[in-house]
Amino acid sequence: MGIFEQMRAYGHEQVIFFQHKATGLKSIVAIHDTTAGPALGGCRMRPYASEEEMLLDVLRLSRGMTYKCAIADVDNGGGKCVIWGDPNTDKTPEMFRALGRFVEGLGGRFYTGTDVGTYPQDFVHAKRESSYIVGVPVEYGGSGDSSVPTAFGVMQGIRATAKKLWGQTDLQGRTFAIQGLGKVGAKVAVSLAEEGAHVIATDVVADNIERVRSRVPGLEVVGADAIFSVECDIFVPCALGAVLNDHTIPRLRCRAVVGSANNQLEDEERHGAMLQQRGILYAPDYLVNAGGLIQVADELHGANPERVLAKTTAIYDILLRVYDLAVSRGIPTSVAANQLVEHRLQMVADLKQISVGSVKEA
Amino acid sequence: MGIFEQMRAYGHEQVIFFQHKATGLKSIVAIHDTTAGPALGGCRMRPYASEEEMLLDVLRLSRGMTYKCAIADVDNGGGKCVIWGDPNTDKTPEMFRALGRFVEGLGGRFYTGTDVGTYPQDFVHAKRESSYIVGVPVEYGGSGDSSVPTAFGVMQGIRATAKKLWGQTDLQGRTFAIQGLGKVGAKVAVSLAEEGAHVIATDVVADNIERVRSRVPGLEVVGADAIFSVECDIFVPCALGAVLNDHTIPRLRCRAVVGSANNQLEDEERHGAMLQQRGILYAPDYLVNAGGLIQVADELHGANPERVLAKTTAIYDILLRVYDLAVSRGIPTSVAANQLVEHRLQMVADLKQISVGSVKEA
Repeated sequence: MGIFEQMRAYGHEQVIFFQHKATGLKSIVAIHDTTAGPALGGCRMRPYASEEEMLLDVLRLSRGMTYKCAIADVDNGGGKCVIWGDPNTDKTPEMFRALGRFVEGLGGRFYTGTDVGTYPQDFVHAKRESSYIVGVPVEYGGSGDSSVPTAFGVMQGIRATAKKLWGQTDLQGRTFAIQGLGKVGAKVAVSLAEEGAHVIATDVVADNIERVRSRVPGLEVVGADAIFSVECDIFVPCALGAVLNDHTIPRLRCRAVVGSANNQLEDEERHGAMLQQRGILYAPDYLVNAGGLIQVADELHGANPERVLAKTTAIYDILLRVYDLAVSRGIPTSVAANQLVEHRLQMVADLKQISVGSVKEA
Repeated sequence: MGIFEQMRAYGHEQVIFFQHKATGLKSIVAIHDTTAGPALGGCRMRPYASEEEMLLDVLRLSRGMTYKCAIADVDNGGGKCVIWGDPNTDKTPEMFRALGRFVEGLGGRFYTGTDVGTYPQDFVHAKRESSYIVGVPVEYGGSGDSSVPTAFGVMQGIRATAKKLWGQTDLQGRTFAIQGLGKVGAKVAVSLAEEGAHVIATDVVADNIERVRSRVPGLEVVGADAIFSVECDIFVPCALGAVLNDHTIPRLRCRAVVGSANNQLEDEERHGAMLQQRGILYAPDYLVNAGGLIQVADELHGANPERVLAKTTAIYDILLRVYDLAVSRGIPTSVAANQLVEHRLQMVADLKQISVGSVKEA
């Protein structure tokens, strides 16, 4: 399939191929939709098997960012950057400076920062060459660890779900099964314990469990696979993608799924519907985990922690709107979220028409 | 061949695919080399048969612009824009406004204007959305008809060639065979006549001949094919490309070829060498016809006709350097021109190292 054909299929505005001879940088930036504002999305570095695979990844991920920005009420569009190479062996500071120059050359249509395979320190190099870099370490002007707002956003998602399920946000005595006690999962576990909830958790890294044990009274640890079938009120996936699939959904013994992992539904349509049929309330992952995005997006306006807190707090209200829409239309929550996004994008496009209406007279 | 592979083969920095749903714009911008400055190149609109053909065209043309800028001592790199569509049926003002927005979004890394299939008026629309548009009509801030400096550059090429052939620039009594009396060819014909030369010419459009007849005393008109074999001092191709080929070169009865047509050598290597073997001095087209480029490039610095004149005047000196290099190295003039370009690009890159040397310490 040609580039234009793929762009049309996904609705992309712009795809940029970069090559920098001296540093060996090979990168693609995809700008999906700038209706709401400049594109924003992380930069992933992977030893892709082919250019086709690389292109498909950046097209798919950048479209996802449009949805994530729109649902989280962030005034940015979706973009993404991919670098072709092995992050363990091919990475150099010069490569990221070259990347910074290219990003700078896009004149502010695209902002980027870390993603899989890249680290805040890499973007310290990129930032020397560009103003359009986000998520660098605090001492270089970044807004800091994004797991803090992400975990807070998950808690807001849990509170909204509690409200929907039980008519109140009190989590006292409720049981949560957390998959993954990494940076986000651990913070969620501690917050839940602080609110008097019972926490069951799993993590393949023993250290991750030990690190939270003292701060989560009564922590119950189960095996990696057992987490899917423990009886609980809410299942909280904070690790891998595609954990909601044909094998796991029939095993779930929970009322709802609310977690920070990306792309939890293996097949969005099929597994979103399957959860609906089982009567399990699914909190769309890209809304629940938007806290990190809200924080880096906020850097574009001069990072302000109070504003980040306010926008992340709103995940509660937005998720309730998603739940209400799903009920009133009899559709899965994953579909309801997408419909809210599309409605919002259309609204923003219509608003923009006011200022650019003159295009039509040209 | 993948995009990165083609970029490496041609040495490109950046290739950008644009799509704009509302206007149907499908466009590719290729930025070949920005060592010497922001990329500059026209925008061509054609009903390409495929995306591959379109991509190849923009890659090839943008590389050519790097060479043209470098040889003409213009501080720009090579770029080019192509639009996929039929200029007679698919063009709309909105499409060019969308193009302008995309060009604006490149933040000044690329400047564009008219080329085959597009007109200054089209770029009046584009310029409403972007500062990086050149070659619009004078009343919209453009530098005016580029055939004036182009024809002047051809005359400078002819004078340098006369100097090389006969030791003096006087054209009195010399005979010139001009192929094509369009905007550039007509001006060259008039200038030659003013200097007392004898002009033989051909044009498939009868009106073009009539338009110059009164200003070219003694004008001799021949058929479209006969122009290749008329006895003359200098053959001046000002119409089609690929006119110097296996069929025409053996028929030429001239001492030199100096004209404004693009891509005169059907096969650069083969036919450049063939002219050398026949002892016919070939003035590389991309140097001789650089006057138009010099004028639009000058718009980036606030169009100044005196500066355009000075830079176009220098085509005389540069062409003499090409001729001298070809003699001293025993190579075709087409090869000598390319070597001068590569030398100049290396020089500029070395100069830039002075300011960006810190990259190495990063």
